[in-house]
Amino acid sequence: MKKQNCIVAQSGGPTAAINASLAGVIDAALKSNSFHTVYGSINGIQGVLQHKIISLNETFENNPDAIHTLMTSPAMYLGSCRYKLPDFKSNPTQYEFIFETFRQMDIHSFFYIGGNDSMDTVDKLSQYAKSIDYDICIIGIPKTIDNDLMETDHTPGFGSAAKFVATSMLEIAHDTYIFDIESVTIVEIMGRDAGWLTASAALARNSYNHAPDLIYLPEHDFSTFQFVNDLNTLLKANKNVIVAVSEGVHDEQGNYICSTQAAADKFGHAQLSGTGKTLEHLVKSTIGCKVRSIELNVLQRSAMHISSLTDITEAFQLGSEAVKAAEMGLTSIMLTLNRENNHPYTISIGNVPVSEVANAAKSVPIEWINESGNDVTEEMIEYLLPLIEGEPHIRFKNGIPDYLSIKHLI
Amino acid sequence: MKKQNCIVAQSGGPTAAINASLAGVIDAALKSNSFHTVYGSINGIQGVLQHKIISLNETFENNPDAIHTLMTSPAMYLGSCRYKLPDFKSNPTQYEFIFETFRQMDIHSFFYIGGNDSMDTVDKLSQYAKSIDYDICIIGIPKTIDNDLMETDHTPGFGSAAKFVATSMLEIAHDTYIFDIESVTIVEIMGRDAGWLTASAALARNSYNHAPDLIYLPEHDFSTFQFVNDLNTLLKANKNVIVAVSEGVHDEQGNYICSTQAAADKFGHAQLSGTGKTLEHLVKSTIGCKVRSIELNVLQRSAMHISSLTDITEAFQLGSEAVKAAEMGLTSIMLTLNRENNHPYTISIGNVPVSEVANAAKSVPIEWINESGNDVTEEMIEYLLPLIEGEPHIRFKNGIPDYLSIKHLI
Repeated sequence: MKKQNCIVAQSGGPTAAINASLAGVIDAALKSNSFHTVYGSINGIQGVLQHKIISLNETFENNPDAIHTLMTSPAMYLGSCRYKLPDFKSNPTQYEFIFETFRQMDIHSFFYIGGNDSMDTVDKLSQYAKSIDYDICIIGIPKTIDNDLMETDHTPGFGSAAKFVATSMLEIAHDTYIFDIESVTIVEIMGRDAGWLTASAALARNSYNHAPDLIYLPEHDFSTFQFVNDLNTLLKANKNVIVAVSEGVHDEQGNYICSTQAAADKFGHAQLSGTGKTLEHLVKSTIGCKVRSIELNVLQRSAMHISSLTDITEAFQLGSEAVKAAEMGLTSIMLTLNRENNHPYTISIGNVPVSEVANAAKSVPIEWINESGNDVTEEMIEYLLPLIEGEPHIRFKNGIPDYLSIKHLI
Repeated sequence: MKKQNCIVAQSGGPTAAINASLAGVIDAALKSNSFHTVYGSINGIQGVLQHKIISLNETFENNPDAIHTLMTSPAMYLGSCRYKLPDFKSNPTQYEFIFETFRQMDIHSFFYIGGNDSMDTVDKLSQYAKSIDYDICIIGIPKTIDNDLMETDHTPGFGSAAKFVATSMLEIAHDTYIFDIESVTIVEIMGRDAGWLTASAALARNSYNHAPDLIYLPEHDFSTFQFVNDLNTLLKANKNVIVAVSEGVHDEQGNYICSTQAAADKFGHAQLSGTGKTLEHLVKSTIGCKVRSIELNVLQRSAMHISSLTDITEAFQLGSEAVKAAEMGLTSIMLTLNRENNHPYTISIGNVPVSEVANAAKSVPIEWINESGNDVTEEMIEYLLPLIEGEPHIRFKNGIPDYLSIKHLI
């Protein structure tokens, strides 16, 4: 087989594991005999449109240390974008530019690491390539802390975010129980439409800690009346009540509970914040006890220092497998993680046509939420537990993690 | 010397290191020949007033594993209180009760781990004991994430909080730089009157990361006009500007910048929140670029999983030294950490009369803040750096830290 070049890019919101997938792609591509140069596009597909393309060979070839450091560095080494390609039938200009660039650079494999919006890009590029008969393998590698991609058991990035959420919930519980006064603590967790990450707060429970006492996911309609009722019931037996709530909870009519006016991003998703604060004010005005809300904010997707070894390892494997898939000539696919067994936990890597994944979202099954809509079931815990297992080795320098330089993005 | 009993308690806000000092006290007291029973008072001095006193011998005697786990567990194993003792001259009832309890339980050493409000309790109890000629050694062991205790180079708990702040700031920087759009990110850090913890965000800077680009401490008057000016200047050269701001920044007249009405706690301190949000709205309305505020909230004082080994080790040593001080008959003192050398970093443990510490606070020296009031100097970095060095071994179970059970508090 004649050696060609390949390109890799990252897109969407960051996770602790998305660089591990990048490391997997770079490592496998540099070691294979199929590729001369492994290019990286800066800021996702935008980098191709703006000629911001770098060679990754110099930094990573014969440099296992750099590969390892990349694997354990948060967010995106290549930067990201939130860019929706237009329909190519009505608007082909950008596609023509992209594929002319690929042709000039002898690029015949494209790896795109991202969530469901990024799979929309993979799908559109695949369709366009087919329409012009350009020989290219386009492979989607999943990632998202939201865990809401279809056709895969779970998504890289989710396990690390879940480990941060569960660890923080346990530490917040230790922080809360020390005072001998009645209190309500509300922890707001990311997840616009899917409650997977909020559900993972349940992993903080252990032999002594029952927090979170209440868990509210966006898959179940939220009633402020029922919420206050739930709190009052629990406060009869417990001094402190700790709540995990998804940023995206909404009432029966679909109105978000958060107070701030929701602005829409480029994909038409509402941008939320303030659910915790809104509920804090509600508790203050109805129950009147000590109340605090805590928004985990971007820490939950960027806290590499408390990432899951399972997650990072799987993300790396997906990167390597993507290169193998391209070498086998597969295209228009997204790789998937299939759970083979839960005790012991084992997975296999498969793939699905990317068109089955793009622009769709996987919600928490309603039967994994309890009847009252304020907790998750044992099936959910069984599903979540293996995903947060293990701690990767993070190197420190001057007291802080020694991550890979992202000077080229700054 | 006749064997007697001793009692230990914790008070004030939690830190990641306050249990390490407790572990130091328990370990040294159980190993010494001076004490039969090591008692713990639940919820600080309130536990003595409410007869909530437990023996610590059963759990910790000949159990180095429990001592180690206590050392690496966040917040307070014995619970806390925010309780101000009345003046004993006008209101001796509680003092009479406390010392009658001590007499009945043969308690002649009292170790109190806390911040400056807790040292007020140590001071008052010491004075009362002297007035009734009760033979007791009362020793204060410092802790506070605020690092604002007088007469000690730094306080246990601060280094761990500073390590969390610096690590989170670096991870927030990685999260921020990935998008190719102009943005302002505001990180709100604890510190009502003292800016030490906010200053420690500067430790996130490394060979590639210049964030935080701006640092605002409460020791320097804050001008919203100057703030917007600072941002506009930086945005000319930088795509992303990241700000570290203390919750307690205030204008020339002393008015806090935060929007929420400040309620006062029992010691008369204003309870703040919302500085980051207030500045976020200001940036939105004046500059109009993408802006996000992140409140590190209680995570910065409870995140044991990213604590500083230097901090945890020193906290343990202070606990051990407190027992030695009591055995030597010292009383009415607070132990102190004295920095002997910075390269290599070495400390010694000393002590001061507790009356010199109680109800006073140590601010950041104004000469460690730059002239524009928007950064810290190299002296500050030199001071801070050794305090966040090293990572203790945290044991994990089921993917989350395996901390010591606090069932007795729940």
